Parts: sequence; C-alpha cells; structure tokens
Amino acid sequence: MTTAVEVIRTKRDGGELSDEQVAWVLGAFVRGDVAHEQMSALLMAVVWRGMTPRELSAWTSAMVASGERLDLSGTGRRVVDKHSSGGVGDKVSLVVAPLVAALGVAVPKLSGRGLGHTGGTLDKLESIPGWRGELSREAFLAQLRDVGAVIASAGEQLAPADHQLYALRDVTATVESIPLIASSIMSKKIAGGADAVLLDVKVGAGAFMRELGPARELAQTMVRLGSDAGVRTVCLLTAMEAPLGRAVGNALEVAEAVEVLRGGGPADLREVCLAVAGEMLALGGAPQDAAPALDDGRALAVWERMVAAQGGDPAAELPVAPHTELVAAPRSGVLAAVDALAVGTAAWRLGAGRNRKEDAVDPAAGVVLAAGLGERVEAGQPLAVLHAGSPDRLAEGRAALDGAWTITDGAADPLPLVLERVG
Amino acid sequence: MTTAVEVIRTKRDGGELSDEQVAWVLGAFVRGDVAHEQMSALLMAVVWRGMTPRELSAWTSAMVASGERLDLSGTGRRVVDKHSSGGVGDKVSLVVAPLVAALGVAVPKLSGRGLGHTGGTLDKLESIPGWRGELSREAFLAQLRDVGAVIASAGEQLAPADHQLYALRDVTATVESIPLIASSIMSKKIAGGADAVLLDVKVGAGAFMRELGPARELAQTMVRLGSDAGVRTVCLLTAMEAPLGRAVGNALEVAEAVEVLRGGGPADLREVCLAVAGEMLALGGAPQDAAPALDDGRALAVWERMVAAQGGDPAAELPVAPHTELVAAPRSGVLAAVDALAVGTAAWRLGAGRNRKEDAVDPAAGVVLAAGLGERVEAGQPLAVLHAGSPDRLAEGRAALDGAWTITDGAADPLPLVLERVG
Repeated sequence: MTTAVEVIRTKRDGGELSDEQVAWVLGAFVRGDVAHEQMSALLMAVVWRGMTPRELSAWTSAMVASGERLDLSGTGRRVVDKHSSGGVGDKVSLVVAPLVAALGVAVPKLSGRGLGHTGGTLDKLESIPGWRGELSREAFLAQLRDVGAVIASAGEQLAPADHQLYALRDVTATVESIPLIASSIMSKKIAGGADAVLLDVKVGAGAFMRELGPARELAQTMVRLGSDAGVRTVCLLTAMEAPLGRAVGNALEVAEAVEVLRGGGPADLREVCLAVAGEMLALGGAPQDAAPALDDGRALAVWERMVAAQGGDPAAELPVAPHTELVAAPRSGVLAAVDALAVGTAAWRLGAGRNRKEDAVDPAAGVVLAAGLGERVEAGQPLAVLHAGSPDRLAEGRAALDGAWTITDGAADPLPLVLERVG
Repeated sequence: MTTAVEVIRTKRDGGELSDEQVAWVLGAFVRGDVAHEQMSALLMAVVWRGMTPRELSAWTSAMVASGERLDLSGTGRRVVDKHSSGGVGDKVSLVVAPLVAALGVAVPKLSGRGLGHTGGTLDKLESIPGWRGELSREAFLAQLRDVGAVIASAGEQLAPADHQLYALRDVTATVESIPLIASSIMSKKIAGGADAVLLDVKVGAGAFMRELGPARELAQTMVRLGSDAGVRTVCLLTAMEAPLGRAVGNALEVAEAVEVLRGGGPADLREVCLAVAGEMLALGGAPQDAAPALDDGRALAVWERMVAAQGGDPAAELPVAPHTELVAAPRSGVLAAVDALAVGTAAWRLGAGRNRKEDAVDPAAGVVLAAGLGERVEAGQPLAVLHAGSPDRLAEGRAALDGAWTITDGAADPLPLVLERVG
C-alpha cells in the first residue's frame, strides 16, 4: 500500500515517483488523508530534487483531475487561452482578447487578482463602472459564443488541488520551484478547456523570473505539459526590465489599453500585443497580421461588446485620483532605463495594489510615465505623474521611485521586447 | 520581524539561521504560532541543507530550553548518563547502570520503549514482575541518591519540543538527518542534568546506522553538542552486524543481563559492557577496571536494590513462552555471520516488539541463539530457539530467519566489537 511517508522518502532520496504514487498522493491530499505537514515536506523535497518530465506530467494530470475540465466545444470556433506570468504595466490581455476575437478565434480568459507589485487583470477591468468578473458557467459560455472574448474570475472549480497546494506553498516557502510553478499554471489552463494556449513569461527586474535561463526552463516545461495534455502551447519570453507602456495602475491601464485598441498607444505595448495576438491567431488556425484590426476599429468594437456583456459601460468615465504629483528629471540626457520593480512598487504604495488578498485596491491610483526609453529629457521636465487618493499615499509612492530612472549622456540602444519563442 | 516563511526560505536557499531565528522558530512552534506544515517544510530543508555547528548548537539549546533542565546536584556523587542508539540484543544498560553505580558513579538513565526490530530498555525491565518505570521526580532523585542507579521512563517533561518535533518527523520522512538525530538525542541528555554522558552508537546491519562514516559523523556531532552545553560527552561506536549476546527479547534479555552481572554470560556482551562501564567510570572521575565488580557480586547487589526500589522482585521467575521451536543448522561448518536485522525482525514478529506505539509487547517472546560467531556447528544441531505465545507467531518468526546464518568451511576471523571512540 502506498503511504505518504514512502512517497516523501522516495522524492527526498532523489527517486522518481510512479504515476500511481503521484495520483494517490494528490488525491489523498485533496480528500484530507495526506496531512498538510506531509504535503509541505513533499513540496520541499520537490523544490530540492525537482521532478522528471514523466512525474510532472502525472502531477499536472492529477491536479486537472481534482476538478472538472471545461467543455468549450459549443463555441463553434477555435478557442485559444492566454496567460501572463505577470509584470508591471502588463495590460496585454485587455487588448489581445478582443483583438483575437475580432479575427475569428475565441478567447476564454480566466484571471486572478493582483498581489504585491504586479497588478491583476480583474482589478484593472473592475475600474470600469458596472463591470463584473464573476460569471455563471452559462453566461461565460454564452458570451464566448456570442462575443468571442471573455475575461472572467477563475474561481476555484478548475484544478481545486492547485488552490489548496498554492495556499500551502505560500506559507512554507515552496513557491519558487519551476515544476511546481509550471504545473500550477498549466493545470488551470488545461482544465480551462481551450484548444491551445499562448503563454507570456515576463523576464527581468519587474517580473517573477529575473533571469532568462530559468524563464526559458519554465517556458519549456509548460509547453511540454500542454503538449502532454493535448493542448497546443506556445510561450513567448518578453522583457520586463521597464514597465510595459506608460501607465501602471488599474484605470490608468484600462485607458491605455483602449488607446491601443484605437490604433494608438505606446509603441512597446502595441508591439507586444501584436506579437501575442499573432501567436494566438496562428494557434487558432487563423494566421494573419493583427495590426489592421487595431487600426480599423474592429478590435475596439469587440472590446465594447465584451465590456458591455459583463455589465460595464465602455463609454463611462474611468475613476480619477484626487491627488497628483509630478516627478521631474534631475538632469538632462537620454532616458536609458526605468526600473520596472520600482515603478510597480510605487503604484502598489500609491494604492493600486494590495498587501493581503482581502485588501481592496484603489482603481484610480498609479503612475503614468511621461517619457519613454531612448527619449531625450531636460532637467526639470516631468518623468512621471503619480495618482493617489491621499497626500500620504503620494509620499509613499514617491519614495519608492528613488533611483528608478537612469539618464545618460549618450544614445540608448533599444532593447528587444520579445526575447524568445518556445513551442 | 522574523517570520516562518523567511526562516524556511533562508534554510531552503542554503543560508545559515541566526541564533535568534532558531530560538524564535522552535519557541513559536511549541506555542503553536508556527504551523506544523511550516515546521515540516523547514525540517525537510534541514535534511537537504544540513546545519552548521553554530546553528545546531542553537537548535539544541532551544530544544533544551523548551522544558526544564533537571538538577541532580543533590545526588552527592558524580552523575554519568548513558544512551544507546539501539541494536538487536542490546541489554548493555541493564548491566552497566548497576555496575557503574557499584563503583561510585551515579547513573540516572531515562529510557523509552522499542518500536520495530530494536527493543526498548523499559520493555525489557517491565518483564520483571512488579517493576515499574514511571517514577515521580522525588522517587527518581531519592533512588539515584540511595541506590546510585535508576532506569526510568523519560516522560515528556525534558525537551518537550523534541517530542513534538519527533512526532512530525516520523510522518514526514524527516527522521534520517544527522543534525536532527543528534539534537534530538542530546537535547534530552542535556536536559537530564548529568555531569557527563556516554553514548553508544551501534553500527551495522542491525542498527539504524548501517555504515561507519555516517555513524562517526553522528558521534562527532553529538560529542560537540554535549561539550557546547557543558556536558562532557564520549561516544563509542560498537558493532551491530550480529546480535549482541545470545538473547533477543524482553525477559530473555533480562535473564542474560543477570548472567553477566553474576560474572558469566556471553563474552561479546561482557566485553561491550566493560568498555561502556570503563568510559562511564572515567567520565565520573573514578577510572578503573569494572570487571571485578561483575565477578564478586557487587554489581549484582546494586541490580537487586535497583529492581526492588522500583517495585520489582529480583528473585521472581521471569515469564516463559508457552511455545518454542528449534532452528537447526542446514549444514556443518563454522558460524561466520548472524544477521542482526533478521534476528531482530524475528523477535519482533514472535511478539517481543511492537508495530505501533500503542501496542503491548509479549515479555516472554524472542530468540535465543544457540551458537556464537566463530563456533563450529554440525548439520541438524540447533542454531537458535524461538519463543512465542502461539504457533502462528512461531511461524512468522521462523520465516523472518531465512538466510540469517552464514556457515562456512574455513575459520571465521573475529570482528572487533568496539570500533572507535570519539570524544
């Protein structure tokens, strides 16, 4: 008979767990027959020893099997999901969901809320008056069929083992493990029922993955897990040294996403949106250049239908912060770097992020950068505008920005935004 | 502020915990502020990363500080404790406690019960009609003063953190870690209040430590922990390839210990007892050859007083098993090896050991070897007698002995019993 101690000992000693052991230990954990202290010891042993591809595939399957797998076959179109590992100013989902839907591929995106310095897609959309992310199964499927794009709350029905495991990992310092991260993300994506998945792994100072090497390993692992489960998966590694676009904060990011959907917006954001949308269209069997749909209003029309279908008024004014402050350039020169982590932390302190899951966010708070990388700035000109609900918050946000900008005398080489493609 | 996640992460990443972090995490665990799942993740990280000498010393101090440290200064004599890591047929404590006391050094031995194939000293003594191991603090100290030797139940007052940690380690496959083993043993010995401690680490097929290298590392670690806490500590590494002596099982071992206390008994057992007693006498400031006290009845007299002081009748008949069976030699030759693990497992199956902590043991069950290593045996002659409460038990014990004996044609070289001395 399989026992928890035997499973933990096998992994502790560097052995490989059988498919039966993996399925048993996750099933018994969800049933409460494997204690939390046993699972956390196993998780630490996994952080230590890693998992073989076979083990990890079984682990991910068992997580998927802990709940239901959505059936999206009634949508009548190819269905491609999208996931980002989270970055500062990352409003790409807001743009690509309607954009890809406008070109014939359905996008069923289940999202979460933000914690710490990276924002959550639901938090951003909730700054639109009336918009709600909690949809019934029927409403979700109907909107996917009728509008072609849904961004909704993930809830806990998909891969419920992952929710339980994540809560445990969070308090036992076992979050930072590539197999555990990969299986957590992919179990939910596989259970989500899409035909294919586009992953956007952010790499750099403002991202969870700071270095290209581990990010690439995570990408390869997730692509393999998707493929093992019959879900075609492609991963882009994209840069997160500087914030993406100019706006960081919930309503501020929605406004910027709408600019891109109108054919404008910052060039870096538009470039990443088009790269992601292009991969999603290819995965959905409709390969094409997505730029025309941004420029001719087709993507914007789907955005408006998508927002309205979830109770939001796409024409409503977004919330505006009562207090603002300019950050001025201390010297003249070329803007060579903007530290994404510092800007993300500033937006969080200004009120755009939360410290604990239960906290509310301020929809209007955040940072809007006034100058882009490579641009010339003059001493005293604005580098950014801070938005907050109170002067105290402004001061906290301002403090987080110390040293965030690097201004040099020479010209700055533009860095690539899409670093690699895996899949 | 120190948090559990921070402490776990530091150890997980190979860093060294500060004295404050160690004291905080163990104290908070005992208070219930650090959850079991957090401690088990930390324990697995310790299995992975080990502990530096400074960390381990702080860890052990914190375990001692979780309860009281006994004050044995009223004994009026030097006090030397003894601990064995556990072996098959290891009744050395039964001999050396009265022997060392007879020569002027007090022995306050706190013992536990057995689990699996190694017996517990309390289980052995409880086969003496009337004997009890649970003593009040006052009775314990009075007997130590008046008789000079006590073997009593350890209870859970000393180093209570260790009891809680051990229960967790047992279910999370984190038992097998030299720093955790060393601190578990030494925290209880340090809290026990003796001036010095003699450790007997068994090495070989029948012991927890199979190999000399790890056993030596454990010995060095424990000797250093004792010294760090001001308790002079010496460790002998002794052989456990074959059972020690001829008797394995509770009453059977008591009878054999009494034989040694009468100046007889198997030569290997007498040799180990004299080596251990000699070290204890030296640690107690009374270095001398202990053999005369075995041969002239002084040790036996203390044994009888020690048993009587705890309610036992030293003259009473020990329990006798209703069923016995001979194991005959399959061929003639020289007895080259007896597998201690097989014999220990056989005694366990015959009823001398327990599967779970709650189980009772059969005081009369066990194995008595009929031939010693290096002796010539003839085909059909007895190799052992099995003792059990039922024919079913006999059959189970017999099955565990398949292949336990190695009989060769040439002469067998005697192996050393005391392998090394550390301290």
